This record gives sequence, structure tokens and C-alpha cells, in this order.
Amino acid sequence: MSEQVDGRRRRYEHRRGEILEAATAHVLEHGVRELSLRKVSQTVGISHATLLHHFRTRDELVAEVVDQVVARALSVPSLDEADPDPLRTLWDRATADGGSPYVRLFLELAGMSMFGTSPVHEALVRSMRARIAALSEGLVRAGCPPRDAETHATWILGALRGLISDRFVTGDTARVDAAFEELHAAVARRAAQWRTAQNS
Amino acid sequence: MSEQVDGRRRRYEHRRGEILEAATAHVLEHGVRELSLRKVSQTVGISHATLLHHFRTRDELVAEVVDQVVARALSVPSLDEADPDPLRTLWDRATADGGSPYVRLFLELAGMSMFGTSPVHEALVRSMRARIAALSEGLVRAGCPPRDAETHATWILGALRGLISDRFVTGDTARVDAAFEELHAAVARRAAQWRTAQNS
Repeated sequence: MSEQVDGRRRRYEHRRGEILEAATAHVLEHGVRELSLRKVSQTVGISHATLLHHFRTRDELVAEVVDQVVARALSVPSLDEADPDPLRTLWDRATADGGSPYVRLFLELAGMSMFGTSPVHEALVRSMRARIAALSEGLVRAGCPPRDAETHATWILGALRGLISDRFVTGDTARVDAAFEELHAAVARRAAQWRTAQNS
Repeated sequence: MSEQVDGRRRRYEHRRGEILEAATAHVLEHGVRELSLRKVSQTVGISHATLLHHFRTRDELVAEVVDQVVARALSVPSLDEADPDPLRTLWDRATADGGSPYVRLFLELAGMSMFGTSPVHEALVRSMRARIAALSEGLVRAGCPPRDAETHATWILGALRGLISDRFVTGDTARVDAAFEELHAAVARRAAQWRTAQNS
């Protein structure tokens, strides 16, 4: 490999990161459905040909962007061990200021996977299972019997996801926020039972 | 208006219904994302030009299909007043034989509405609110104080939606079904409290 090719490759690799950054920012603001190769090449200020050099198809670009976004979303510590109320923390993060773009994107991707044709299906499945595992650990710390933790984590995360989806779609914040408080109270009652059982 | 034009219009209207049927069947099997004008014209056996005569854009076709699908989904009596366990009925309907295509489509549409750019956004919002209202009525019949019914309907439907989404995406039926049983038990405990309060 000549020096020249090597230098060009480094330049391309740099460019590739820049393209991914631009595409990621676009997706977090507008969703995956609105992502087009043309818009991304315009944002980065490169030609369509250069973009195609890095990502041959829209699906390839989407898959890489989503890998990056999912990796980021998962890299955020979802539950701090010292947090006395992790469920409220998750809710506040998802709903503050119109909602986390990561949560919104996550729900768009889940919708895209309904018929199993999404290029990001496998990454989404890994992410969903990792979230269940993280919440299960949190519930065990809160006193949940380890054998029941996955079941509880599944319905609690399901309810959170369903409520946030309702809130984004309908915009009925008062109705949905009241429902979250009810969910929160139900989980708190359950946690109190776990602690009582542990101490008896 | 001449007889000829009138006759042609009737024939077109007939054709329009046929096109909508084909598009609806396609959407229920493959989802909205996979719907293309080309595939629909192939299924019905008409030219692309004839299809465009009826639906100028893909979005227009999608909007009409979804109106039809949502109307059907809503026309099914979601909760029979005599059903002793409507929550399980909803679950069984959504999950039997790989899941109702209507539920799957509903979740795909909800995902598409995350960034507010979906052409079916308003129809989806109406549908979600109608479901909440229907379940609220069911909960009042089960003894829920009317002022709390909407809040409970919101989190219960949210949890159902979140669990079904998890089940379709991950395919982890055992984990998700166990979580549904936990949700079901939690709602049953709540209903028992409502009845005790009513009888006291």
C-alpha cells in the first residue's frame, strides 16, 4: 500500500466519522424515516458520490447511525445504584423538555421492527434485553426476589414505554403523567412488600 | 354530467374499493413501511397510471388504508360487558397465532408518529383516546371510581402496548407472558380493592 493511498484512507475515515455525526444529529431531531442520503450529504457539504463511497445504501447508513445511537443510549448509566427513585429518574429523563430524542428514536425503531423487516432489528433486540437486565438488577437491589426480577422489570419497562409512547403521540401530558404516578405508586407498594418479606 | 362519465365514475369507485382492499391486506401482512404503489398496482392487476388516477401519492393511499384499518380495529367491540376477564381477552387477541395484524400495525403506526411527521397522526390520536375511553368504561363496570378510571385505563393500556411491543420485537414470549400475568394479577388486586371499597 503506497503512502498516498494510506493518507487518503485516513482522510476518508475522518470524513466517515463526520458523516455519521451529521446523520446521527439529523436522526435524533427528525427520526429515521426522514433520513435521506441527500440531506446528509447536504449537511456535511459533500457530494452524493462521496457519501456513496462511504455508505453504499441508505440502509447501511441507517444501520451504522443506529448502532452509534443505541451504543450511546446504552452507555448512559440507566440506573444509578445510589438513586433512591430510579423509576422517576427514567421518567423525568424521557419526558423533560419534550422528551429525550433517544427515547423517541427508540420507540420509532421499535415500531419499525413490528414486521421484522428493519435493518436494525437485532441491535434493538439486544438493547431491549440489556435494559431489562439493568432494571432487573435495580429491582433486586430494591429487595425484589432475584427469580421474579426479570418478570417485574419486563412489565415495568413495558408500562414506561407504553406511557411515553402515548405521551409523545397524543400530547396528553396531564392524563399520561397521572398514569405514571399510579404506576410509580404500584411499584412502590410492591417494593414495600419485598422489604417486609426480607425483614420477616 | 353525461351517462358515460357517470358510468365510468361508478366503475372507478368500484375499482377504488378493490385497490383499498388489496392495499389493506398488504399492509396487514407486511406493515406500512413496505407499502409501495407499485406493489399494490401489481396485486390488483392495474397499471400504475390507473392507480395514480385514484391515489395521487403514496401518502394519500396510506392515509386511506389506515383510516379503513383503524376504523375496522375500532369497530371490533374491544370489551364485551359480559366478559369476566376483558384484560386477558385483549391479551389473547393480540398474541394468539403470532399476534393480531391490527395490533402489530397499530404499534408500527405509533412508532411512525414519534416525530410528528406521520400522515396518519390524527387518526392514531383519535384511536388511542377512544381505546382509553372504552377501557375506562370497562374499569368503572369493574368497580373503579369514575374519577380514577382514565388514569388506570392509561397505565394499563400503556403496559399492554409496551408488553406486546416487547413480545413482537424480541420474540421472548415466555418472559413477556410471565410479565403479563404479573400485570393481570396487579389489576385483579386493584379491582378487588375497588369492590371492597364499594361494599364497605
